[in-house]
Amino acid sequence: MNTIELLKKKRDGNALSKEEIEFLIKGYTKGLIPDYQFSAFLMAGFLTGFNKEETSYITEAMLYSGKVLDLSDIEGSKIDKHSTGGVGDKTSLILAPIVAAAGVKVPMISGRGLGHTGGTLDKLEAIPGFRTDLNISAYKKTLRKCGLVLVGQTKDIAPADKMIYALRDVTATVESIPLITGSIMSKKLAEGIDGLVLDVKTGSGAFMKDFRSAKKLAESLINTAKSFNKKVVAFITDMNQPLGSYIGNWLEVYESLLALKGEIENDLTELSITLAGAMIFIGKKARSIEQGKIIARKTVESGAAFAKFKELVKLQGGDVHYLEHPEDYPSSKYKRILRSKRKGRITKMDTYQIGLAAVELGAGRKTKEDVIDPKAGIIIRKKIGDEVKEGDVLAELYSESKKGLSTAAEKYLNALIIENRKIRKPKLIKQIIK
Amino acid sequence: MNTIELLKKKRDGNALSKEEIEFLIKGYTKGLIPDYQFSAFLMAGFLTGFNKEETSYITEAMLYSGKVLDLSDIEGSKIDKHSTGGVGDKTSLILAPIVAAAGVKVPMISGRGLGHTGGTLDKLEAIPGFRTDLNISAYKKTLRKCGLVLVGQTKDIAPADKMIYALRDVTATVESIPLITGSIMSKKLAEGIDGLVLDVKTGSGAFMKDFRSAKKLAESLINTAKSFNKKVVAFITDMNQPLGSYIGNWLEVYESLLALKGEIENDLTELSITLAGAMIFIGKKARSIEQGKIIARKTVESGAAFAKFKELVKLQGGDVHYLEHPEDYPSSKYKRILRSKRKGRITKMDTYQIGLAAVELGAGRKTKEDVIDPKAGIIIRKKIGDEVKEGDVLAELYSESKKGLSTAAEKYLNALIIENRKIRKPKLIKQIIK
Repeated sequence: MNTIELLKKKRDGNALSKEEIEFLIKGYTKGLIPDYQFSAFLMAGFLTGFNKEETSYITEAMLYSGKVLDLSDIEGSKIDKHSTGGVGDKTSLILAPIVAAAGVKVPMISGRGLGHTGGTLDKLEAIPGFRTDLNISAYKKTLRKCGLVLVGQTKDIAPADKMIYALRDVTATVESIPLITGSIMSKKLAEGIDGLVLDVKTGSGAFMKDFRSAKKLAESLINTAKSFNKKVVAFITDMNQPLGSYIGNWLEVYESLLALKGEIENDLTELSITLAGAMIFIGKKARSIEQGKIIARKTVESGAAFAKFKELVKLQGGDVHYLEHPEDYPSSKYKRILRSKRKGRITKMDTYQIGLAAVELGAGRKTKEDVIDPKAGIIIRKKIGDEVKEGDVLAELYSESKKGLSTAAEKYLNALIIENRKIRKPKLIKQIIK
Repeated sequence: MNTIELLKKKRDGNALSKEEIEFLIKGYTKGLIPDYQFSAFLMAGFLTGFNKEETSYITEAMLYSGKVLDLSDIEGSKIDKHSTGGVGDKTSLILAPIVAAAGVKVPMISGRGLGHTGGTLDKLEAIPGFRTDLNISAYKKTLRKCGLVLVGQTKDIAPADKMIYALRDVTATVESIPLITGSIMSKKLAEGIDGLVLDVKTGSGAFMKDFRSAKKLAESLINTAKSFNKKVVAFITDMNQPLGSYIGNWLEVYESLLALKGEIENDLTELSITLAGAMIFIGKKARSIEQGKIIARKTVESGAAFAKFKELVKLQGGDVHYLEHPEDYPSSKYKRILRSKRKGRITKMDTYQIGLAAVELGAGRKTKEDVIDPKAGIIIRKKIGDEVKEGDVLAELYSESKKGLSTAAEKYLNALIIENRKIRKPKLIKQIIK
């Protein structure tokens, strides 16, 4: 096979065969095809598209560029969840113990914060001692013992994705649904799962700003999962405001504890229970998503979910003291209370800007080298549709940096629109696709 | 400016500004933008297109990546011709002395053979001693003294073109009319010319196989030339059979001598006189192309054109003996006469394959390192529309290599179609665009 001929074929809008896509992705991963040819391929594919079959071939080639875990010696269904990323989204921390408590295994490989969005690994590491860098044997041991495991991606998992993503990032070829599909699914399939629940976010804080492209991505992910004989359910959910009321790594662990103990009921708990219900359903422990949700709620009410989370934290080296006594967790040097200057209702929250405000406080990284401050973050007191009077608290900001606090305060206030009109709260779950 | 943002802009089909295109091309030429980003830019532009203005900006950025010659201290109009390349096309050798003899200056920078096509430099170097590597001062001196000069491209001329062409060649982005336009025009404009006659070839031996794309290219070249305030005339001409009867470097010099001495009259002389007539017209020595052609013919009849060629060869170090006594030129070790096995008419000549046959004989290069044999080549005895009887000579092949002779003989015979039907000779000049 000849790389230039394959570039011509894709450039001219023709579909590539399985062998041809394998040749390109394997060749690039092994260093046989140079960056400049692969970037031309990415741009050609970005513009002329890849069909369903090609998307599966891309996923497969990326998947087999590395290790594919075999969990067949662990009993029961292994189900994971993937979210396309948002602000304040700590559902993984809540649903993983719930689902495990319901008897479905949850082998979850997560990522770090990216841009304005947080990452599950960073949140977990806010728990002192918690280790996310387990090797494969410890990974399987924890999963077998506890029914869930929450770790980071190792170098062995889909190395092609890492290389290709880095090239896409600098060649304006990120926003391609087939390439995004390949990137997500190759990593998830490498976990050795039986099924996957997808949370595709749409709105001002999501990567897919509009519903149409979120739906396209959801359908592409579903098609690909099915082509690998995996069970799959996708939800298109709202990200026009942060999920829950806490942003920042420890603050999100804290809100997750409240949810696991059944002490709050909000959009975060609604989404967590729904996604957990779907996982329990495709994990064969319920006959429907609805029944799965009932089971999920019961694990919270009975205390089983919270107990499962503590068990996991202990197994992965974390200090459970702070889970029982979060009041002992160190607090930030600086705090700023943001108050409303006018009367009205919150009609809009620019969630992307709110995510960036959290980064300014120290809750995220501006460059790869930045160290995260686990205590930094935002407690949101008013969300879309809420009434506010002059002087009402809109949010509390926490940081070690005075400058960060000022920048974040400005960003946060600019991200809100307060108007004198009624508005419905955004619908959280916009569509379910099976 | 940010490279990734510009890639997104082009990828999304938006036109780039002059400054943006300059940023990309300058950045790439200086090594500030890596290959993989520039190849993504090339593929994006290939697929979403560049408009007229962008094509001019590309040309300008490539032009000013190197030296632009200033010929304003040389009196009179400076006019060049550019052909998109074909087989047997030695018109430069004929029209340059004709036009110079008519009083129009011809500063011509040419290239070497590429793939199946020959190059003017390789042909000139078949004349023993002829030097094509003049420096700028010798270039201007020769032009001032003789009225014409025929040299090769130096490293100083449009270096961006060399870099970008090399990248296009390996990223399937060659066949883009705006990029081809930039490549051709940046080099021609760097010569310091006042006007340009374009010979855009179409047919089985041309880079533009069909008339439509040849016309598009001609129009793009004209638009760009005009945006630089250059006088320009374009001809779309036939390349469904070799031009003239001789292919190969010395053989083409020989046919040029016959043409300059007025000893032959064929498609080659018709095209040479026409292009020369247009050059004389835009060089202000005639009121029309037709009058220019009459003047051109007179320079041949009077012997002035041939004398001018001899003067040039002498000035550029060549041995004029062979121009007066071509019979003294060394001959090839092997000769093969190809005869027809059937009666009929030649209805088709696959000119691309005929060009490759000449390369097999030693007249061209398969790799950059190959050394050309100036004696090698083909004398064509029958062309499209000619009647042949069984045993009639179709062509004579010359080479130093027995193996090359066999391969070329097979290629040549396979390139011909002989049928029992009447066929018109292809129309040589298909369109004139001003």
